[in-house]
Amino acid sequence: MRAGIVGASGYTGAELMRILAGHPEFEVTVLTANRYEGEEVTSLYPSLDGYRGRRFSGWDEGLIESGCDVLFVGLPHGESMKRVPGLVGMGKKVVDLSADFRLPDPGDYRAWYGESHCCPELLDEAVYGLPEFNRERIKGARLVANPGCYPTAAVLALKPLEGLAAVSGPVVIDAKSGVSGAGRKLSLGTHFTQAADGISPYSVAGHRHLPEIEAWLSGLTGGGGGGVVFTPHLAPMNRGILCTAYVHLGADGDPAARMERIRSGYEGVYGHGGFVRLLPEGEYPGTKNVQGSNNCHVALESAAGGAVLVAMSAIDNLVKGASGQAVQNMNIMCGFPEEAGLAGPGLFP
Amino acid sequence: MRAGIVGASGYTGAELMRILAGHPEFEVTVLTANRYEGEEVTSLYPSLDGYRGRRFSGWDEGLIESGCDVLFVGLPHGESMKRVPGLVGMGKKVVDLSADFRLPDPGDYRAWYGESHCCPELLDEAVYGLPEFNRERIKGARLVANPGCYPTAAVLALKPLEGLAAVSGPVVIDAKSGVSGAGRKLSLGTHFTQAADGISPYSVAGHRHLPEIEAWLSGLTGGGGGGVVFTPHLAPMNRGILCTAYVHLGADGDPAARMERIRSGYEGVYGHGGFVRLLPEGEYPGTKNVQGSNNCHVALESAAGGAVLVAMSAIDNLVKGASGQAVQNMNIMCGFPEEAGLAGPGLFP
Amino acid sequence: MRAGIVGASGYTGAELMRILAGHPEFEVTVLTANRYEGEEVTSLYPSLDGYRGRRFSGWDEGLIESGCDVLFVGLPHGESMKRVPGLVGMGKKVVDLSADFRLPDPGDYRAWYGESHCCPELLDEAVYGLPEFNRERIKGARLVANPGCYPTAAVLALKPLEGLAAVSGPVVIDAKSGVSGAGRKLSLGTHFTQAADGISPYSVAGHRHLPEIEAWLSGLTGGGGGGVVFTPHLAPMNRGILCTAYVHLGADGDPAARMERIRSGYEGVYGHGGFVRLLPEGEYPGTKNVQGSNNCHVALESAAGGAVLVAMSAIDNLVKGASGQAVQNMNIMCGFPEEAGLAGPGLFP
Amino acid sequence: MRAGIVGASGYTGAELMRILAGHPEFEVTVLTANRYEGEEVTSLYPSLDGYRGRRFSGWDEGLIESGCDVLFVGLPHGESMKRVPGLVGMGKKVVDLSADFRLPDPGDYRAWYGESHCCPELLDEAVYGLPEFNRERIKGARLVANPGCYPTAAVLALKPLEGLAAVSGPVVIDAKSGVSGAGRKLSLGTHFTQAADGISPYSVAGHRHLPEIEAWLSGLTGGGGGGVVFTPHLAPMNRGILCTAYVHLGADGDPAARMERIRSGYEGVYGHGGFVRLLPEGEYPGTKNVQGSNNCHVALESAAGGAVLVAMSAIDNLVKGASGQAVQNMNIMCGFPEEAGLAGPGLFP
Repeated sequence: MRAGIVGASGYTGAELMRILAGHPEFEVTVLTANRYEGEEVTSLYPSLDGYRGRRFSGWDEGLIESGCDVLFVGLPHGESMKRVPGLVGMGKKVVDLSADFRLPDPGDYRAWYGESHCCPELLDEAVYGLPEFNRERIKGARLVANPGCYPTAAVLALKPLEGLAAVSGPVVIDAKSGVSGAGRKLSLGTHFTQAADGISPYSVAGHRHLPEIEAWLSGLTGGGGGGVVFTPHLAPMNRGILCTAYVHLGADGDPAARMERIRSGYEGVYGHGGFVRLLPEGEYPGTKNVQGSNNCHVALESAAGGAVLVAMSAIDNLVKGASGQAVQNMNIMCGFPEEAGLAGPGLFP
Repeated sequence: MRAGIVGASGYTGAELMRILAGHPEFEVTVLTANRYEGEEVTSLYPSLDGYRGRRFSGWDEGLIESGCDVLFVGLPHGESMKRVPGLVGMGKKVVDLSADFRLPDPGDYRAWYGESHCCPELLDEAVYGLPEFNRERIKGARLVANPGCYPTAAVLALKPLEGLAAVSGPVVIDAKSGVSGAGRKLSLGTHFTQAADGISPYSVAGHRHLPEIEAWLSGLTGGGGGGVVFTPHLAPMNRGILCTAYVHLGADGDPAARMERIRSGYEGVYGHGGFVRLLPEGEYPGTKNVQGSNNCHVALESAAGGAVLVAMSAIDNLVKGASGQAVQNMNIMCGFPEEAGLAGPGLFP
Repeated sequence: MRAGIVGASGYTGAELMRILAGHPEFEVTVLTANRYEGEEVTSLYPSLDGYRGRRFSGWDEGLIESGCDVLFVGLPHGESMKRVPGLVGMGKKVVDLSADFRLPDPGDYRAWYGESHCCPELLDEAVYGLPEFNRERIKGARLVANPGCYPTAAVLALKPLEGLAAVSGPVVIDAKSGVSGAGRKLSLGTHFTQAADGISPYSVAGHRHLPEIEAWLSGLTGGGGGGVVFTPHLAPMNRGILCTAYVHLGADGDPAARMERIRSGYEGVYGHGGFVRLLPEGEYPGTKNVQGSNNCHVALESAAGGAVLVAMSAIDNLVKGASGQAVQNMNIMCGFPEEAGLAGPGLFP
Repeated sequence: MRAGIVGASGYTGAELMRILAGHPEFEVTVLTANRYEGEEVTSLYPSLDGYRGRRFSGWDEGLIESGCDVLFVGLPHGESMKRVPGLVGMGKKVVDLSADFRLPDPGDYRAWYGESHCCPELLDEAVYGLPEFNRERIKGARLVANPGCYPTAAVLALKPLEGLAAVSGPVVIDAKSGVSGAGRKLSLGTHFTQAADGISPYSVAGHRHLPEIEAWLSGLTGGGGGGVVFTPHLAPMNRGILCTAYVHLGADGDPAARMERIRSGYEGVYGHGGFVRLLPEGEYPGTKNVQGSNNCHVALESAAGGAVLVAMSAIDNLVKGASGQAVQNMNIMCGFPEEAGLAGPGLFP
């Protein structure tokens, strides 16, 4: 099947190229990147040896329409919503990696991204692409909104808790991300000498991924804003998100029995294969163990005498947190095996 | 004044040597390290150029008694309590950097460190060396127990909150440490290839610094175990602890007014100079900004519509979290200016 | 085809598992690791999700004989030569990743590795597994000695120069390696806090890979010891070897013409596909561009007015420098496509 | 003495502030930075706690003339030469950290920096500020050109060799630098995700520091261009330059005796105190051992049976390679002890 990547010059585009190079079903036919039109892929990414001789083209509707069956869109938010309606209109299956179709309510979009949504009619149709909890809807979708990296890690860590225990007060999500999450665009905060060998929080209590997380954890927190406290941190590493979440549980019942019930509930969700693995008791996730893979490691621990559940998860932000999950979604949309092209282990060390 | 370092070959010992090299009042006269007796300091630490020609001696009571006025003890826990009574008995002022004299109750010591305390009588006399909250008692002390690195960061971030707001449920402390916190001793977890370019939690809900933190924050949490959830993480950096703490506040009163009251309370505590700086609103601490210095940066943020306070702090674990604070304590014990030898800025980048 | 890994618990063993998990022809049937007998693979390497439930076995000749068709040996040098003869005797094809069969002369082995070789008779038969320059001999081999990581990088950078220019004086090879090259074994030099955020040379003029390099570059240097100066450095990164080599050329002829001849000679060797890519003029190799791949990037530059040729190469020390090359060799030995299981791009960033 | 820093917002400016904060003789009175006029020092550099409340001013001749006795100029090359003549004209002692006054020949300046020198008359007067080899001239200078970071490391490693042995062919200098050498200015190559966890060469055979190195090593190489091959590399670390230099010696005489003569010559130069230390035989320099200090570690090794000398050096590029050396020069110009404010050990780890 012929796949195009629109907005291919960023890190998610390059990661799509890397993954699709080993995919048994997709062939990459079109790579657009207005800013780098005519440039060789390997001059931006010497790592992509298999793309030697391939060049980025500019935006070209005719080329896309005739040359692609499915499309991955790696444009920045705000630009994506301008291109996606046309692509869907061509009858192509589309996975959009931007934030533009993740929030169903256009008012939320305006509030968090600072501009009006230009095609609110597609928001209703767009399906949130978290296969572990939305697989059935993805199957029939024309347009999938690929989740943010932080929401992927946070929701995989916490969503199975729904219905297993009463939650008291806001859920705390303390997340640590590698610098590739900020993309290829230069900024002082991601300048090597500012970021290396140190760690710091940013966007405390106001990160744009917060509404996405709150929406998907509303079954846990009772819904509404304020149910989640989310603090991202920039860690001095290339890839990876580690999510350490703290849930204050009610004081009811026997803590040990509750913990057993919770663990067993998670096993019910994740214990049947797939990309998410619940680690054995006493083992904790590390970002390095999932580097370069579509895997997610999840662990649970009881703290404060059982009053608080600590739920942890690790993913590679560019794979399960972006391009790998996009391919997983497209696999589902196209009826291919979900793990096609994604089955590899992590790169360690 | 003549200073000896007992157990000088570890990272805290080396850091003491580094700091004392520039101290106007102390002269380092004795350096003991049984394992490296007779070896040159610069063969272990080529960075300590000023100590060229100096050698470690073995444990030697006579030498210590005649050659030192004050002592810094950098032995591992369990060994320190065997040596410290003798040193105090000689009439020397002692700052002990181990955990042996931090917990006032010998039962706690046994519970957390797995052996009986061998001189519980000194536990009563030992003064916990967190100058910002215990200065008066340190002044007259013969023996100061230097705080753990995590408790230093956590207590500086949270203690001013006491009395400023009602707290609901356990306080969550999510801490990220550089690898030097684990010392010079080899282990798989601190092997470069295991730790570099990745992050992971460890000792979740069971780290030995928990009781120290709980004891010093009992005014905030209502006392008793279970008031604090503490999760340390190993971050891929040499130095630094970043502490991100989450306090669930009661729902009473106007959140904005409460936040203003809290900020103003912190300014009352930290706004008059010293090593701790409350950052301006909207700025957050980074470990790199305090690297190599005795400084601590603190910041506050309101989350979940005011229902949760996020208190953040950054220190250099080997300086304010260990050897710098030890010198600060000794300065106080000896009547020197508290900042003597410690006034330098951080090393950035 | 059933593949066994003997000595599977080290980094080269883990990397073999990672690569073979995606190989279309090999199935990993046996994993031995005496020290970890009975332990789960994922307890040592949580990254190897696909090996969930698999355990290391101890050394077991019966199991190996009946369960494997081919063998990769990842034992330390000195141990490998004790096991390999038996494995070859069983009629299995063997790729040995240790140093034990790389030096044809047992006297050299004794000189550099400090002990007598215990099966010198196999040294004659063993084939040096650098496919780019030894493919024909590898095809028919029973035992292939997989090259060292440094020799792989150095020889790929320099060997095409043979016959293209006269060399004056020793060739200088300045190499920078990631820490994984030192393996999983703990040592002070590879402790995170000693190695991170700094660089230093080691084994200057006396590294064990020197004789291997000299042997393979003898056509360039005129043979004999002393033809190569080799300085390895430990760089603060997980993976990768960058080799910067300096060849003093004679003063004869026009430098520009000579440089063109040299470049054209390299293109003749590397310009027809395969894992080695000669970069365009003005581009230089970076270890990150080949991370996780079996690729090697090579570049050439003229310096000192043409009097010195700078030849550069980058590989991933665990892939093209070890396990990837081992699979490449086994592919050749078994008649599979040389790139089977190895065709992926690098993981960047 | 009142010191001003012109162009204070870059990394060398910040490092000057850090060093001068602990200097017994200098008081920092003026900090100019046109781009950040009116901004607080701590908003750019939160590490500089002692400068709380201080703000950058714009360029202001009156302020500088009345407020400063000496000046450190941290402007980019090309801008510096426009400001320095005026400052010297005011009668202030000036240390210029840019490249503008390092090359005595204005033709060289035009060739390497792409523009004409605007005050060639000052080039004659400017003194190259490498105190170890130019101390007497610095004493009486009005204007000192502070050396480049690479030339400092390279010349300290090699200059004592002059007259000790005959050199055959170009000297090879393979240098590895931390990323702070590229300054605070953003670029793709110094973006965290491009630089972290990998190493690569750049400006091969054409770096702007080459003519400076060649000029100062002309006694070794016979003078003229082409005597030095210089390859800088970007290493994934904040600070530090490691220089590994290779000198092909003539084949004359007994190699062991020659090596002894060379070592003894170096000891004659560096064995009497100061910032440069010749390491004991068998020890090699690491950048981490000099981090944050003005120290330089030098080591020597014999290779290729004595035919090649390997000379190694390590410095902190921002201290001995820039701001520390600038203070050292100013100390000399002002008649202060050369080590005033610079005596501290390195920060390790």
